[in-house]
Amino acid sequence: MVDTASSPFARWRSVRLTDVQIASGFWYSRREINRDISLMHGFRMLSEAGNLQDLRLAAHATDGDYRGPVFMDSDVYKWLEAVAYVSVDTIGAEVREAAEQAIALVQAAQQPDGYLDSYYQVVAPDRKWHELNTGHELYCLGHLIQAAVAWHTYVGDDRLLHVSQRVIEHVTSMFGPTRRIGVPGHPEVETALVELYRATRERAYLDLAQFFVDHRGSGLLGPNPRFGGSAYYQDRVPVREATEIEGHAVRALYLTAGVTDLFLECGEQALLDAMLRQWTDMVSHKLYLTGGAGSRHTGEAFGHAYELPTERAYCETCAAIGSIMWNWRLLLATGEARFADLIERTLYNGFLSGVSLAGDTFFYVNPLMSRGQPEVVGRGVVQRQPWFTVACCPPNVMRLLGSLGEYIASHDDAGVQIHQYISSTVRTPLATVRITTDYPWSGSITIGVEATTASSPWALQLRQPAWVSKCVVRLNSAEVEEPPSSQGYITLEREWHVGEVVELTLPIAPRLTVSHPRVESTRGCVAIERGPLVYCLEGSDNANVLDARLDPDSELAEVWQADVLGGITTIAARGTVSDTTEWGPTTFRPRESNLHASGVPTNLTAIPYFAWANRAPNPMRVWVPV
Amino acid sequence: MVDTASSPFARWRSVRLTDVQIASGFWYSRREINRDISLMHGFRMLSEAGNLQDLRLAAHATDGDYRGPVFMDSDVYKWLEAVAYVSVDTIGAEVREAAEQAIALVQAAQQPDGYLDSYYQVVAPDRKWHELNTGHELYCLGHLIQAAVAWHTYVGDDRLLHVSQRVIEHVTSMFGPTRRIGVPGHPEVETALVELYRATRERAYLDLAQFFVDHRGSGLLGPNPRFGGSAYYQDRVPVREATEIEGHAVRALYLTAGVTDLFLECGEQALLDAMLRQWTDMVSHKLYLTGGAGSRHTGEAFGHAYELPTERAYCETCAAIGSIMWNWRLLLATGEARFADLIERTLYNGFLSGVSLAGDTFFYVNPLMSRGQPEVVGRGVVQRQPWFTVACCPPNVMRLLGSLGEYIASHDDAGVQIHQYISSTVRTPLATVRITTDYPWSGSITIGVEATTASSPWALQLRQPAWVSKCVVRLNSAEVEEPPSSQGYITLEREWHVGEVVELTLPIAPRLTVSHPRVESTRGCVAIERGPLVYCLEGSDNANVLDARLDPDSELAEVWQADVLGGITTIAARGTVSDTTEWGPTTFRPRESNLHASGVPTNLTAIPYFAWANRAPNPMRVWVPV
Repeated sequence: MVDTASSPFARWRSVRLTDVQIASGFWYSRREINRDISLMHGFRMLSEAGNLQDLRLAAHATDGDYRGPVFMDSDVYKWLEAVAYVSVDTIGAEVREAAEQAIALVQAAQQPDGYLDSYYQVVAPDRKWHELNTGHELYCLGHLIQAAVAWHTYVGDDRLLHVSQRVIEHVTSMFGPTRRIGVPGHPEVETALVELYRATRERAYLDLAQFFVDHRGSGLLGPNPRFGGSAYYQDRVPVREATEIEGHAVRALYLTAGVTDLFLECGEQALLDAMLRQWTDMVSHKLYLTGGAGSRHTGEAFGHAYELPTERAYCETCAAIGSIMWNWRLLLATGEARFADLIERTLYNGFLSGVSLAGDTFFYVNPLMSRGQPEVVGRGVVQRQPWFTVACCPPNVMRLLGSLGEYIASHDDAGVQIHQYISSTVRTPLATVRITTDYPWSGSITIGVEATTASSPWALQLRQPAWVSKCVVRLNSAEVEEPPSSQGYITLEREWHVGEVVELTLPIAPRLTVSHPRVESTRGCVAIERGPLVYCLEGSDNANVLDARLDPDSELAEVWQADVLGGITTIAARGTVSDTTEWGPTTFRPRESNLHASGVPTNLTAIPYFAWANRAPNPMRVWVPV
Repeated sequence: MVDTASSPFARWRSVRLTDVQIASGFWYSRREINRDISLMHGFRMLSEAGNLQDLRLAAHATDGDYRGPVFMDSDVYKWLEAVAYVSVDTIGAEVREAAEQAIALVQAAQQPDGYLDSYYQVVAPDRKWHELNTGHELYCLGHLIQAAVAWHTYVGDDRLLHVSQRVIEHVTSMFGPTRRIGVPGHPEVETALVELYRATRERAYLDLAQFFVDHRGSGLLGPNPRFGGSAYYQDRVPVREATEIEGHAVRALYLTAGVTDLFLECGEQALLDAMLRQWTDMVSHKLYLTGGAGSRHTGEAFGHAYELPTERAYCETCAAIGSIMWNWRLLLATGEARFADLIERTLYNGFLSGVSLAGDTFFYVNPLMSRGQPEVVGRGVVQRQPWFTVACCPPNVMRLLGSLGEYIASHDDAGVQIHQYISSTVRTPLATVRITTDYPWSGSITIGVEATTASSPWALQLRQPAWVSKCVVRLNSAEVEEPPSSQGYITLEREWHVGEVVELTLPIAPRLTVSHPRVESTRGCVAIERGPLVYCLEGSDNANVLDARLDPDSELAEVWQADVLGGITTIAARGTVSDTTEWGPTTFRPRESNLHASGVPTNLTAIPYFAWANRAPNPMRVWVPV
């Protein structure tokens, strides 16, 4: 969570989950599944994979061998963080008991000296704090802190907070400007420490975050020879000198979230400048249409500028979540809609594809094309899985869905800003507003003033997505001509009264998108988008996805299909399918052979990208040749 | 080396290096550099990287820590194998002394019980033969055997042969049908054992090769969770059931070479059938235009059908060499030119790009596109390197260049077959022929009969490359109309007399090639080829490679440039360059924005792909949009 209520350099203040109610609509359904299915599924998986057992071993409560990778504890913490968020609404007894069990294990596992990391306690006590590049002790601590802040804030339960504070005391007894200099190989603790500072106002936590940010990029971690040198660890250049987003995508995006958090509290312009440089590099050159980040399986990394392969896109679900976290902090720092735009793109596409409609299987890797064959190489299978050996993504999905309410709106002394059009009621000190919409299926959004404490004018600001050229605004049924707009927000400043209603209509008709000619994999292709949704062709709806071409002049017909994939708007288009079997057993031919020149007319059906791979495994493509 | 003089199932018999003289022309120069520069460079690198020191440690001749990966010994063996081949012509005293030193170290390192593997001797004596999947003991043994056979055959020196035989005795005391069942995680020993059998006629070596082939694919190695399960180790299906080429490319191609060797000796049709299925899958779906193999950095692996990214192509130099090895064995088994065609394609492109013109730097990864920026992620930098942490490729290049003479021709009782048009004199029992040509720069090839022992007719067979639609053949200056052709070979059967001359003219005018529409990265692109050479655009010759388009109707003008890159034929073409800066800081735009529609006319200059990256690092592309 991000609580910028007292952050001196926040342009806007965040809203707590306790002040937001999502009670219907698109995300309500997803959050119900998260609460009713995913959470207990996650706990079962944590039990089966050994995460809980590892903590038991650390607590000397049982015998056996440590199981799983070095960062097993972090999955427990992320799951606990999710439980805290979900419990703001309501939570079942089974989940509550499971969380009790997990918290008790975490408490029991902590050493008398404050140390807590089951891997090192069980497997390698003599290597504690000796493997900062790969050891993930501070990464796990970061997730522990985030869970602790969530439980403190939303459940009023400080057990994890006390555990966290004891670990940090242990850390600061060793690390610091006058002690040992070190930085974690996987950023995460930075953003967590700032949030803990916000929750406790304990300056030492902010200082520790600053310490970790300041010393990064001086080569302390050594290179990772296999996965891209120092860039892999975000250690190639000092944070303030960064010009590119590079290396391991999740590491990059967790770090930038933490650095932006630091700016929100300390206001150091050099930090924000570096963040904006990296952001511009990312959106200009290294981001997928889905908002997905990470072009390479090797090193789970950003690629070169315009290196955006479709089929071998990495686009880890955690990277989408990291991007949402970072963009939210940049939005609060700057008040610019481009960051909320990217949150929207990522939420509805590259993030949401990470979990099945049923809520019990997950994607680690979210490619933009699949040939529908069994994937024998690499971790990125093209069927969602119940869990992973490296299981960072599933509980990350759970905590993001649990905390979704935080991303809808913000406020300042001058008004209320609506960033995401999610049906909900949002309470701020100035006013309570209610958003009602069938978005993303419909472009009609109603925002009603349910309560207001202000007797003087204030501004209701509504994000106008970048893909919208012109939208219609009605105030109490009367169209507002040329509503004023600032930094991507339509701004309606006036004395507001309870019962007044703004109707916003976003034109969400399907549109075709092309990509920069330097992108190799999408040359000669278009993608279909509708509102915030990226669409794709999937084999379940189309006879031959791999040989299909889209007629770019085709009508794009929207069809609401209540019975398909939980209810979606499909898009019908004209195209052709070519017979590529005439190529025979070769990949290359003389240009004169001129095969594949024409095709047989066909009808194509596109579905939202997030909904793919919920039927039998089959081919899929976002980018379709024209 | 492959010596099929006595192989019962070889369609054709191979020619030994002692019967081949390459004394001028394209490859002569490359082999001079290999002999004069690469070999001593390699020895220095083996010294600096620790390979020799590791053997010294195993011999208890020094103190210190083992350095490098588990398969360090294999690089020494490959280098020694190269020395044996090169010494057939002539070799300097410095290299000879270096080889003496290396052989003495290998002898000294061997244990009294025959075991030899410096990693396990020094680092992990208790894990000998316990890590067959990752340990590389049998892989190293394979390379030792290949070096031993080369020294035995070409130097008449059996020191390495004796070392090898003692290791194998040690191996067979543990492994075998009635002892422990096991297979190596990295194939290589199979082909080596068959060659040792050929050199010694010791049936036990053939049986051991057969044993390793028979038990592969039954899951003995366990899955590799990170790099593609059992396919990574070539252990997903039994060899005889294989239908696809998959997993780690070098492992795949070394194994198929060994299996084909086994067929050459034993004639089991099921083995050859499996090889032909895998070969067809490879050339139909999984091979690059350069002959490069391996589409994925992750797992260094083959990808799905048509998954052939240009920029992130892996195309390890060793995989090109493995493919040449395999195709040579298939050629000897079947007598079909398609295998020699692929050897040619690979030799002149995907293999030769692996070494710089100066002979002292190497590519591990051979991509088909580079954006010319520093490569911060992954092992595959886009500048050739003096050596690598995993240094399999450089000595592999040296041994292939050293043994190149073996690939030129073959013979049988009915005649002589010319496979590669390399200026040379080739002696067979039937006749000695002399090939004179400026190929690949010129398509004119002269083959003269220098000696013949036959008084009755015999067939001179000349490969007609698949890219040739019609070539001109002259016999003693008179054109041969419609020369008979069989399985890709022009067959001239007659009584031959000394001094008779065949002139073959291959039309090598530049041509444009397109790729299958299912290949994502090359959509809308063409490649330029000329004779056996694949061409590319490099930044050194073109102002803007990344935004260039080729006019497909352009004249393709051949220009011999003696002073460029050691002397090459460049190809000049018309094209356009577009201003992509107008896209601004975004990767995606509405289709209507219609940017990049036209471009400024420009002259493009293409160079042979093998010669790229010999000037300052700069962008390169084989496939150019039209």
